[in-house]
Amino acid sequence: MPEFQTDVAIVGAGPAGLLLAHTLHNAGIDSVVIDNRSRDDIAHTHRAGILEAGSVRMLEAEGIESRVHTAGHRHDGIDIRVDGVSHSFDFPSLIGESVWLYPQNEIFVDLSAARERTGRPTFYSVTDTALGDIETERPWVSATTEDGEELTISARYVVGSDGSRGPCRSMIPADTKQRFFQEYPFAWFGILCEAPPSHEVLIYSRSERGFALISQRSENVQRMYFQTSPDTEVADWSDDRIWSELQARVDGPDGFALKTGAIIDKNILPFRSAVTEPMQHGSLFLAGDSAHTVPPTGAKGLNLAFADVSVLAPALISALKDSDAEALAGYSRTATKRVWKAQNFSYQMTRMLHSDPSQDAFETKRSLGELNSILESEHGRRYLAECYTGWPKG
Amino acid sequence: MPEFQTDVAIVGAGPAGLLLAHTLHNAGIDSVVIDNRSRDDIAHTHRAGILEAGSVRMLEAEGIESRVHTAGHRHDGIDIRVDGVSHSFDFPSLIGESVWLYPQNEIFVDLSAARERTGRPTFYSVTDTALGDIETERPWVSATTEDGEELTISARYVVGSDGSRGPCRSMIPADTKQRFFQEYPFAWFGILCEAPPSHEVLIYSRSERGFALISQRSENVQRMYFQTSPDTEVADWSDDRIWSELQARVDGPDGFALKTGAIIDKNILPFRSAVTEPMQHGSLFLAGDSAHTVPPTGAKGLNLAFADVSVLAPALISALKDSDAEALAGYSRTATKRVWKAQNFSYQMTRMLHSDPSQDAFETKRSLGELNSILESEHGRRYLAECYTGWPKG
Repeated sequence: MPEFQTDVAIVGAGPAGLLLAHTLHNAGIDSVVIDNRSRDDIAHTHRAGILEAGSVRMLEAEGIESRVHTAGHRHDGIDIRVDGVSHSFDFPSLIGESVWLYPQNEIFVDLSAARERTGRPTFYSVTDTALGDIETERPWVSATTEDGEELTISARYVVGSDGSRGPCRSMIPADTKQRFFQEYPFAWFGILCEAPPSHEVLIYSRSERGFALISQRSENVQRMYFQTSPDTEVADWSDDRIWSELQARVDGPDGFALKTGAIIDKNILPFRSAVTEPMQHGSLFLAGDSAHTVPPTGAKGLNLAFADVSVLAPALISALKDSDAEALAGYSRTATKRVWKAQNFSYQMTRMLHSDPSQDAFETKRSLGELNSILESEHGRRYLAECYTGWPKG
Repeated sequence: MPEFQTDVAIVGAGPAGLLLAHTLHNAGIDSVVIDNRSRDDIAHTHRAGILEAGSVRMLEAEGIESRVHTAGHRHDGIDIRVDGVSHSFDFPSLIGESVWLYPQNEIFVDLSAARERTGRPTFYSVTDTALGDIETERPWVSATTEDGEELTISARYVVGSDGSRGPCRSMIPADTKQRFFQEYPFAWFGILCEAPPSHEVLIYSRSERGFALISQRSENVQRMYFQTSPDTEVADWSDDRIWSELQARVDGPDGFALKTGAIIDKNILPFRSAVTEPMQHGSLFLAGDSAHTVPPTGAKGLNLAFADVSVLAPALISALKDSDAEALAGYSRTATKRVWKAQNFSYQMTRMLHSDPSQDAFETKRSLGELNSILESEHGRRYLAECYTGWPKG
């Protein structure tokens, strides 16, 4: 029956939880990390793929031996395609930054290896996770380990980086929190395919048939998405039908043609925005998807989780090493400023690029006007590039 | 019974119609202008007050002896106030432009005097305006003059600059046009007051009580507005109640206090966006409010009318002097690009600054995130400043 006394109990071994754990470790602060998923499951969950420059710098600053620069790809822009006409954004010239294509599961592999090297306790595949006494200075987390042993962690602080369905968020009393929520009347149909890249950077395409995203993964495997109805069945979409729909959404006078190949995965991604405020209560602090989810259009989900860590880690270090809990008290206030900017950017990118079956003709025209205001203006392009590559941290 | 053979019959002697007439005159092209309002009525209709730099340059280029530089005021920015905290925009440093506070009715006085000096026919206070044969090369306009005479104008082209309720728009057959429309769930309560200016530039204020705009008119008379319900009755608002509401919406830690005075006018402005496309049919061309109306938040109404003229005037001149009707054929396509950018800007300024009783909490937070994304970013501020001072013409 493992029992731990630690500084910080971290529920959730995704990128946010593990980066936080490593940052604390570098400052000499102990933590215990648990996750109900197996290490293998997390390593094979395909999620976000775009890292802001600031997120890469966080990995570097904490000495994570990340393969982002070897296995990842620096992307110096994106392409926004409107009714078949490409508008290319060159981030270095617009804003002096780049982003990195480096899938979230690879980041997890790097972070979990780094965690392992610290020798600090990490438990994957736990069950029955519970937590309590979060209104005291000695909160606890309990779970059953993979081997069936009762695990008890007594900590000074608990961090809930346990995703949108984890148990931590629900520990904040209903009368002290507010949940902001927005659903969108469409979903993304996503595929993984064995094909060479169709383009060197991501293509965000607005067309009369709806949105499509032409993304990349590696030299031989690509990721693509197209907007669809939320009640679409994967079974209704043959490979041929998928390729013809994707191609129709990028067709244009330049004759751009997708490079096709065997489709090795098909899935439907629901679209929603959610924020819980405050992101803290007593000795419990939420980070990443447990506090907020964004639609994938702005590539902000993982970066926002890292941004939370960039605020929470130094606040925890001040509280634990210097007994200065002021930054920690202001964590939610500081973190949610960026959260709402990211929610807005994700919403705007979504609204500007998707067709909404419920929207009127005015809105369709207005959102095209919004897109043109940005595309035709150097200032608009810099503004969008800054949102995409990430605002300065803090 | 006056009968005219002319190049262009212009229905509507507002700023768009008269600036077009003068631009045509300068190119040696004849026109007849009619309006169902009296010259005095138009000169006393209080409407827009902010001129883009490009609009001022149009007046200068056509040699209108405008008092914009003597009676108007150059404004080098605006102030966006959020929950009592001011964010000041300095347009010259952000974008190298300024705007001018110079009321629309003063522009009319300048333009109608310039028209009079040309000696070309202009009829105010007409009734029974009708037009026809717009699908031919000899369209006509008829009306009854103030003196009760039948007026007939035979022209090569007809321009409908007759405002949102004029007869020209309805002449475009229903099956060839589309009307885009959006209503907002609020109105503006506007006042004119005898007081010194409360600030040197316009203040756009977002507060929990709703939006307020602190504008100016002259040294001694000011214009102010606050968001209200569309069914508000002017009679329900005493002067004291108005001042206390306006002050409450700009209250802040800086102690900013409005300079109050006798309220000499009160009115309710409805809020709507509308666009008709195409803005032309056969020999008829729409300009200004007859084709599009915008909510006043972005100060775009009059400037958009001038922008229409900047496209329509050279297109008419090419068609009439060089028999090259290509630009005229593309008038609507060219003009509506800017129209939709202006619709979007007006919509975004409105949405970011007003509270909407029907909107959910997510939207309130998101729009604050949008505002902060702009206010906290140099690129965002430049983008907004460019939208406000006006995109390059053409």
